[in-house]
Amino acid sequence: MRALFIIVTFGVSFLLWGNGTSMAQQAAPAVSPAEKKTYAYPSEGLHKMYEEHVGLEKGSGPFSDAYKPIPLYMYFAPSRHYIRPDIKMFTDLLQKFKPEQCVECHTEVTPGIVASWKSSTHAQPRRNDYFTGKTAEIEKLLGRELKEVLCSECHGKNHDELQMPTVDNACGQCHPKQAEEYAGEREHGRPNHVQSWEANVIVPWYIENYRKGEGASQVGCDQCHMEMAKCDGCHTRHSFSAAEGRHPEACASCHMGPDHPDWESYEHSKMGIIYHLEGHDWDFSKTLEEVKPGEDYHSPTCQYCHMYKGGGKWVIDPVSKGIWRMGTLPPKEVEYQSSLKDFPYGINLPPLNKKLEIYSPENIKKRETWLELCSKCHSSRFARLWLENLDQYMFQTWKRQDEAQKIVEQVVAEGLLDPSVEERHCYPVGDVLADALGPDKLGPAIYKAFKEKKGHVAVIGPILGVSSLFFTAPGNPSAIEKHYAEMWFFYKLKGYKGTAHAQQDYSWWYGWAPMIGQLALIQDEANKLRRLRALEVKTKLK
Amino acid sequence: MRALFIIVTFGVSFLLWGNGTSMAQQAAPAVSPAEKKTYAYPSEGLHKMYEEHVGLEKGSGPFSDAYKPIPLYMYFAPSRHYIRPDIKMFTDLLQKFKPEQCVECHTEVTPGIVASWKSSTHAQPRRNDYFTGKTAEIEKLLGRELKEVLCSECHGKNHDELQMPTVDNACGQCHPKQAEEYAGEREHGRPNHVQSWEANVIVPWYIENYRKGEGASQVGCDQCHMEMAKCDGCHTRHSFSAAEGRHPEACASCHMGPDHPDWESYEHSKMGIIYHLEGHDWDFSKTLEEVKPGEDYHSPTCQYCHMYKGGGKWVIDPVSKGIWRMGTLPPKEVEYQSSLKDFPYGINLPPLNKKLEIYSPENIKKRETWLELCSKCHSSRFARLWLENLDQYMFQTWKRQDEAQKIVEQVVAEGLLDPSVEERHCYPVGDVLADALGPDKLGPAIYKAFKEKKGHVAVIGPILGVSSLFFTAPGNPSAIEKHYAEMWFFYKLKGYKGTAHAQQDYSWWYGWAPMIGQLALIQDEANKLRRLRALEVKTKLK
Amino acid sequence: MRALFIIVTFGVSFLLWGNGTSMAQQAAPAVSPAEKKTYAYPSEGLHKMYEEHVGLEKGSGPFSDAYKPIPLYMYFAPSRHYIRPDIKMFTDLLQKFKPEQCVECHTEVTPGIVASWKSSTHAQPRRNDYFTGKTAEIEKLLGRELKEVLCSECHGKNHDELQMPTVDNACGQCHPKQAEEYAGEREHGRPNHVQSWEANVIVPWYIENYRKGEGASQVGCDQCHMEMAKCDGCHTRHSFSAAEGRHPEACASCHMGPDHPDWESYEHSKMGIIYHLEGHDWDFSKTLEEVKPGEDYHSPTCQYCHMYKGGGKWVIDPVSKGIWRMGTLPPKEVEYQSSLKDFPYGINLPPLNKKLEIYSPENIKKRETWLELCSKCHSSRFARLWLENLDQYMFQTWKRQDEAQKIVEQVVAEGLLDPSVEERHCYPVGDVLADALGPDKLGPAIYKAFKEKKGHVAVIGPILGVSSLFFTAPGNPSAIEKHYAEMWFFYKLKGYKGTAHAQQDYSWWYGWAPMIGQLALIQDEANKLRRLRALEVKTKLK
Repeated sequence: MRALFIIVTFGVSFLLWGNGTSMAQQAAPAVSPAEKKTYAYPSEGLHKMYEEHVGLEKGSGPFSDAYKPIPLYMYFAPSRHYIRPDIKMFTDLLQKFKPEQCVECHTEVTPGIVASWKSSTHAQPRRNDYFTGKTAEIEKLLGRELKEVLCSECHGKNHDELQMPTVDNACGQCHPKQAEEYAGEREHGRPNHVQSWEANVIVPWYIENYRKGEGASQVGCDQCHMEMAKCDGCHTRHSFSAAEGRHPEACASCHMGPDHPDWESYEHSKMGIIYHLEGHDWDFSKTLEEVKPGEDYHSPTCQYCHMYKGGGKWVIDPVSKGIWRMGTLPPKEVEYQSSLKDFPYGINLPPLNKKLEIYSPENIKKRETWLELCSKCHSSRFARLWLENLDQYMFQTWKRQDEAQKIVEQVVAEGLLDPSVEERHCYPVGDVLADALGPDKLGPAIYKAFKEKKGHVAVIGPILGVSSLFFTAPGNPSAIEKHYAEMWFFYKLKGYKGTAHAQQDYSWWYGWAPMIGQLALIQDEANKLRRLRALEVKTKLK
Repeated sequence: MRALFIIVTFGVSFLLWGNGTSMAQQAAPAVSPAEKKTYAYPSEGLHKMYEEHVGLEKGSGPFSDAYKPIPLYMYFAPSRHYIRPDIKMFTDLLQKFKPEQCVECHTEVTPGIVASWKSSTHAQPRRNDYFTGKTAEIEKLLGRELKEVLCSECHGKNHDELQMPTVDNACGQCHPKQAEEYAGEREHGRPNHVQSWEANVIVPWYIENYRKGEGASQVGCDQCHMEMAKCDGCHTRHSFSAAEGRHPEACASCHMGPDHPDWESYEHSKMGIIYHLEGHDWDFSKTLEEVKPGEDYHSPTCQYCHMYKGGGKWVIDPVSKGIWRMGTLPPKEVEYQSSLKDFPYGINLPPLNKKLEIYSPENIKKRETWLELCSKCHSSRFARLWLENLDQYMFQTWKRQDEAQKIVEQVVAEGLLDPSVEERHCYPVGDVLADALGPDKLGPAIYKAFKEKKGHVAVIGPILGVSSLFFTAPGNPSAIEKHYAEMWFFYKLKGYKGTAHAQQDYSWWYGWAPMIGQLALIQDEANKLRRLRALEVKTKLK
Repeated sequence: MRALFIIVTFGVSFLLWGNGTSMAQQAAPAVSPAEKKTYAYPSEGLHKMYEEHVGLEKGSGPFSDAYKPIPLYMYFAPSRHYIRPDIKMFTDLLQKFKPEQCVECHTEVTPGIVASWKSSTHAQPRRNDYFTGKTAEIEKLLGRELKEVLCSECHGKNHDELQMPTVDNACGQCHPKQAEEYAGEREHGRPNHVQSWEANVIVPWYIENYRKGEGASQVGCDQCHMEMAKCDGCHTRHSFSAAEGRHPEACASCHMGPDHPDWESYEHSKMGIIYHLEGHDWDFSKTLEEVKPGEDYHSPTCQYCHMYKGGGKWVIDPVSKGIWRMGTLPPKEVEYQSSLKDFPYGINLPPLNKKLEIYSPENIKKRETWLELCSKCHSSRFARLWLENLDQYMFQTWKRQDEAQKIVEQVVAEGLLDPSVEERHCYPVGDVLADALGPDKLGPAIYKAFKEKKGHVAVIGPILGVSSLFFTAPGNPSAIEKHYAEMWFFYKLKGYKGTAHAQQDYSWWYGWAPMIGQLALIQDEANKLRRLRALEVKTKLK
């Protein structure tokens, strides 16, 4: 029974696989200058996993045999799945245009992207003094002149061997500083951008949905998570504008929605309101270092705050100051009554294998950098109190989650789920999960439970309990599990971002209020399940 | 019992009535040039139904005797309901101004609309070369000079016989090409704009709410559906600007919300983000034919994509390339396990009387036009894969809906609804529905069930099952029916639009995820209903 | 039993306390010119309550002993809670800068706010003719010249006695007309802006959450409600721009969300769409009196409509034309079947102690002012019909709420709540509520019930029943109470604002439809509770 309790509460995506080294060990890309440098896949294991072209027959990660990617994967993860089009089909065009006439031909077939390119700095690399200087630096790096950055620079010179650009084969060649900063996110661990595709394809529910033939349903997931090895999520094709990437909207398409309403909470905060009223007149061609707060920007942008590194420097590493990160791992600072106290239950899967430590020396240093930043426009005492209040807010949410966790654990322990955990559909890929990950990563207790019960275990809590929101199979999840998953993954996280971004409605009405509302529903549902079972026992129906 | 199953699953609004001709037959407005041309009501039956002025005593459609319109109807459907104001009341003004002094008098009483008119092309029909040419064409058509398009052109010359402008009595007189394009939507069948008022007043729940004295509650419905015979939904009074109508926001007030979040999904897609960042500098005075993608528009608008007809032509007929349409009719391409396999159960009410056929020759042609359009900015292969993935996404949603449908049908068949279908309030206008529509339209089985049971039938599924979201009466709908209606009408449709518009959060978090979440609730609820009934039977309470 | 029914239905926040005078008596600030004028706290009792500096040890209001404010209160309610920072800590800065060198020092420590100030009229009080004239008026009032409005004008001259600016100690000194207009909101009673902090700290659930150590969770509440005695909610620091305050976005951060989606409904109405398309070119430096509708503004803003006083005058008193106010008090015009007919149950707490009277002489006059305003752009008949339809919409929502109220009252009366009202956690601060407020304010019946039952009473309905959305404790609220509270406080109010602002989706899909959907859930849940109890009685489990 104790084993079951451990089981029902472990969480978070299995985030690493392959060579067995932990995240920490992989932190700094340890590649000798002689090797081909890869920003997105610095370890050889990861590189091999992705760069080895296998087309669309086989997936990625420890469950790679279990699923077959959808055709769009060739664009989502081109370094692994891209299949070159058969150029011979375009007989008419091949007669009309020579192989080097990319622009001429594509002005006919895809005029929009040619026009976008023509308006870009790539087409006019000396369009002003600033870019002339930057171009000179790149020319020096490449050892050749750049009149224009033509299609071939990113797509290769041979249409029969057309390449889909990634940070490794394209962007990073000319912009190594930016690529390195981006790759530097690994140092701070997951979640981050540079490991986002890994995170996408490794979670059990993703694979399970694929196995059920529902891969097409998950393009929404893919569209955000595909940015791991590409730059066009923020600097859209084929303008690739730095100024575009400095606008807060550049983050919005991904950083919105129930689990991280960064955009919505910024947009409706006073910071976002001022941006909305005045931002169209701000000069986004200035680098963040050049921006004078209150003068150039009258309020901050996502980039201005989250890319600040301290000491007057900004880097393309928006996770570097993250303390609460996504808000999904429990902090050590709270005394838990439920099995959350034992989180992560012996699991050795980074970044699952820890609790947060909000007041660790590293996080205290991050906080100082925040205060340095906030003080540009606020009294430092106000800023400190705000951040401390955010901590208190979060601690309180975890206490409420702990209450809810205890109720649901009790429901499971009393066997009140109906259909029972044994009778209903198992946990996603529960049948192969133990073998795929092994006792070293899962920890012996959880490995054993999954192995023996073939995945017929109830998983509640951060983070693997979030499967209740990604997956529905006969009898799984039950209503109370769904209520619980929504409580922490939607409402707790909305309140977090609302409080962090000083947006009152997200803090309270979209956050705390529905979070405790879910707790009310969980209490009510637990009580009904108990009454129903008591009646069934009394009438000998069970 | 079999009859009941048929009943429980039929769907969609009764969309035509009156003269008994089918939609297909009515497709092309078959009016001789000698007749008065009507764009909104091309058939004589429809014309009579609406144009015959009856004031506010009687409604429209087959249920016209059952309800009495609210006073605002005189503005929502003026061709039928407008009551002219008694001009004699304005004694002061009549002394001060002469009858022809519309502008002078209204500068005093409603200055805002006069100012809007003054800034319009109507007030300055030769304000540039383009409009001088257009005005010349209209002058030729009318056979007279147009110095200004004065109030009287649209409202008539006599205030005692003031007319509310419609496409027939006003807009279409000078702009017949636009009016004809708009009227052309009928060729593609429902849903469309030009039949939107029909759709509003004919669905059973609309009438039922009116009968209960709740007509005032439905102004939200009316505000969108009133655009059937008017142009000011997109070109607002009294500017009537073509440029305004080319902005994506022109569509937003209607094309938003839980069942068709077109605006929200566009707005937060990368296409919408780019429009938001740069659109204020685009030249919206250009016609869509003149727009160069990537140069004039750096990303597409609603109008640019949905009004594209192919061959470099755009028409005011945004439904012409619709394949999945609203996403509410089941496609033939899916194998159903529930009674969805028999949809539409012999019903002969257009457009209810069919399943979709996604790969029909007509739809394959539409798809080619889409690819021609998308290829302006994307590789045609990427575009094709995206559209195919959308199909797969939709097929999968229908499989999930089929699962849910089967569960709820079983609940009804086992008599688990409590209060029972017989005891609770009947289906909207269930008491008069059979007689109003007759066996020819309803099909004999459904006619018989409604007739015999006086509307006490459970209706689940597309499209009439959506009544659960429009109507609540004692015992109707039950929780499981409400969960089901939300599953398909809200979440399935949100995911559809998110996937179609490439907005990831709408595809997954506002779409698929809550859609399968509803399925989990439906499973859970069916199980609880079964347990409760088993207990009641065992204890002889039932 | 009758007493219980009275109890279960009373509502609204306890809005006044202290000196026992009613709102009506306090309406006009009766301060002699000789006294120190206070705009936010015109009565001596209120003034004393807030202005008496007590730091962070003790709260405000009749429950002041029951809770200890969070540190951020020193910024939220500075007139009561501000603790001056110890300037001696800044030794480095004190050596570098002289006490009068605010700008020089703060350019170093908080450059953003200095830059904002530099761009403000405060820094350039004669930057154009208009402001030169305004400045001359202020100079006359103050009896001295104003070259610049320096930091010291608002924060005081001594950093050791630094003051946080409020309308009394800062804004109102130079802008008494604006301050008086704002203070004038009191005349119209609650809800309003100028009493918003009172409303925040006096409701039982706020105190209860504080008592549980969850004060930090309520910063979302505080952020809106803190505007009582400050002006920087609409005119943000340190620009304090009148033009900013005229933009509709100035209202958005607070006036959004489930209970008053003013911003969302305006933003997506045609009025908001036109503002969005064209507003960036409108001249917001014009005063509202100078704005010519249709010419300067092509559509109205929040301020243009809600600050209109009639007769061509605008005042900073946006509640002056409120008829339905927040939509939370039941109107007299509806015949109720539930205990709503007896609302407010003898309670004597303003503004709880009344029903609305939509067609009172005062409200008829307000309506005339609305029509005067709306007629600037609409026919007066259309405007009148729209407002009348809004009334009908609201009356219908109250009838539906009455239906729901009756169902839930019956559930309570039959003792179907489980855990019972006696067994579960009591109403927020139920243990001290009776003593804190006394029989005069609560009315004898409610006082007695709370006193005898120590707060173990079920409170359903407007307005105190909204506690179900603010507070969750063991067994409280139950699911049916939560459904009910959401029905009226979220969906009814969304529909209200959608209908009032002519935004169709908010009127129907975010309003009426989910409102009656909640009624369906309430019906369903009441039935399930009854079935469960019948089974328990039959099987002798209860």
